[in-house]
Amino acid sequence: MNHPDSVSVHATALVETDDIGPGTRIWAFVHIGSDAHVGRDCNVCDYVVVQSEVHVGNRVTLKERATIGTGAHIEDDVFVGPGVWMPNDRSPRSPRMLGVPEVTARYGSQENWLAASRICQGASIGTGVIIMPGLTIRPYAMVGAGALVTKDVTSHRLVVGNPARAIGWVCVCGMRLQPSEEDSWKCECGRRFHLTDEGGLAIRE
Amino acid sequence: MNHPDSVSVHATALVETDDIGPGTRIWAFVHIGSDAHVGRDCNVCDYVVVQSEVHVGNRVTLKERATIGTGAHIEDDVFVGPGVWMPNDRSPRSPRMLGVPEVTARYGSQENWLAASRICQGASIGTGVIIMPGLTIRPYAMVGAGALVTKDVTSHRLVVGNPARAIGWVCVCGMRLQPSEEDSWKCECGRRFHLTDEGGLAIRE
Amino acid sequence: MNHPDSVSVHATALVETDDIGPGTRIWAFVHIGSDAHVGRDCNVCDYVVVQSEVHVGNRVTLKERATIGTGAHIEDDVFVGPGVWMPNDRSPRSPRMLGVPEVTARYGSQENWLAASRICQGASIGTGVIIMPGLTIRPYAMVGAGALVTKDVTSHRLVVGNPARAIGWVCVCGMRLQPSEEDSWKCECGRRFHLTDEGGLAIRE
Repeated sequence: MNHPDSVSVHATALVETDDIGPGTRIWAFVHIGSDAHVGRDCNVCDYVVVQSEVHVGNRVTLKERATIGTGAHIEDDVFVGPGVWMPNDRSPRSPRMLGVPEVTARYGSQENWLAASRICQGASIGTGVIIMPGLTIRPYAMVGAGALVTKDVTSHRLVVGNPARAIGWVCVCGMRLQPSEEDSWKCECGRRFHLTDEGGLAIRE
Repeated sequence: MNHPDSVSVHATALVETDDIGPGTRIWAFVHIGSDAHVGRDCNVCDYVVVQSEVHVGNRVTLKERATIGTGAHIEDDVFVGPGVWMPNDRSPRSPRMLGVPEVTARYGSQENWLAASRICQGASIGTGVIIMPGLTIRPYAMVGAGALVTKDVTSHRLVVGNPARAIGWVCVCGMRLQPSEEDSWKCECGRRFHLTDEGGLAIRE
Repeated sequence: MNHPDSVSVHATALVETDDIGPGTRIWAFVHIGSDAHVGRDCNVCDYVVVQSEVHVGNRVTLKERATIGTGAHIEDDVFVGPGVWMPNDRSPRSPRMLGVPEVTARYGSQENWLAASRICQGASIGTGVIIMPGLTIRPYAMVGAGALVTKDVTSHRLVVGNPARAIGWVCVCGMRLQPSEEDSWKCECGRRFHLTDEGGLAIRE
């Protein structure tokens, strides 16, 4: 593969795409598929899988054993914790995975059961989280360790549990927000937020 | 190892058994132990572990990082999702794992604490599921992502959660079943099912 | 690396420390970081990660894919099950992981968000368990498969669930304890226990 000089790829990593941005570091036993894009200044830790047709933005952290299924889209500055799963199959059955035409016919077209997910700018996904197919995690949301995400998560939301439910809000800096005046939240770091039309938060300038 | 020509084994995979059926594909960083059997036309994805004395049937999918513990039995057409665990130790303690005779004596014989599990024909196990030792997942059952399975699952049952509980029924094709007349269910795909004596469903001919 | 003759290291394992005790076996695709200490007669299974500045005692079992984050401390005779996670970051955000000084400034010092955990003598951690940062699992405690540990666990306690909660007590031998007289428990193996000031159990001599 032909990568910029500033890309470091561990000797044991398998990288099947040329499309890796400068400054990105790829560690041991990683497997990145063909047609995947990984942006600049990313940190791709041991045993990570990035399947084909995945987009990973800039300054993204993919911790150990994160597994990013075919078609997933990860925006800039996202933190994907160790052991996070992003499967893309709503109701898996075995033989169809083999691509046998009769079997595909039996189960219907892939459109019925394949759906990739998206993680938006600056969001954080905790250790061992599973994000079900076809969901969107909005900017700066935080998903607590061990959660099973079965619904979209709005911006700056903190969700935990199996299945995941909202328990609060988090700042860009990662700390919990406190309510201040009506429909308004603030962080110890000084940032202030207001409710958006989509039900998430946005920084109040 | 001596495999049929139609078996493909990635250069980084460790396969310690000859007993792999034709058409099976084994991907990167897989480790298959000695005395394991893997059937024909299986798909064994990155980082999968198949320990010794495991039986894997035909047309089985083992997704990334599935870990099949010693003695497990997986029938034909099963889908084992990414990160599924099938441990075989009911109450693990450390030193006995080292096989020191005095320690084994202290903890009693292996029969007290080792128990393998079985996944029957056509069942699907979702992402990150843990199947506790000594259980049976009956044909065409489906276990939702992130579940902890602590009891046997009857045929065509859909279970989810930690611990797993039944929330419905699924068809051979993977879709949810709807109740029709008494003790009878039907699928959009046209198949019809009746309750069996074992508390599961079977196709009504 | 320069290890005692009795240390066995699989050809595919990456071991960046000299500090491995005699009799320890390190299996396939393992990655042990620099400055880590691993004691004697340990069993380090496939794909395990031991990050830098980790202490692992003697006769410890680290099952497949266990991931021991920087700074963790594991005492003698501990069993760490397959797929256990010990992350060390309380509220992860992505760019700070890159060590850019302006970003570190923005998020505050590492002391605010880094905290390692400790697993004490003889404890057992079940399959797929996540131990949140900064916790202590006391001697001979047992954490059931699939649990998310969010609080310290006292000695001999059995905890399960997401989040983990206490459901009983376990013996050194791994079996459940039965209450006998007041503040006293006994095991089928003959051992007897009393309540300690810390709220755990200790063997009654």
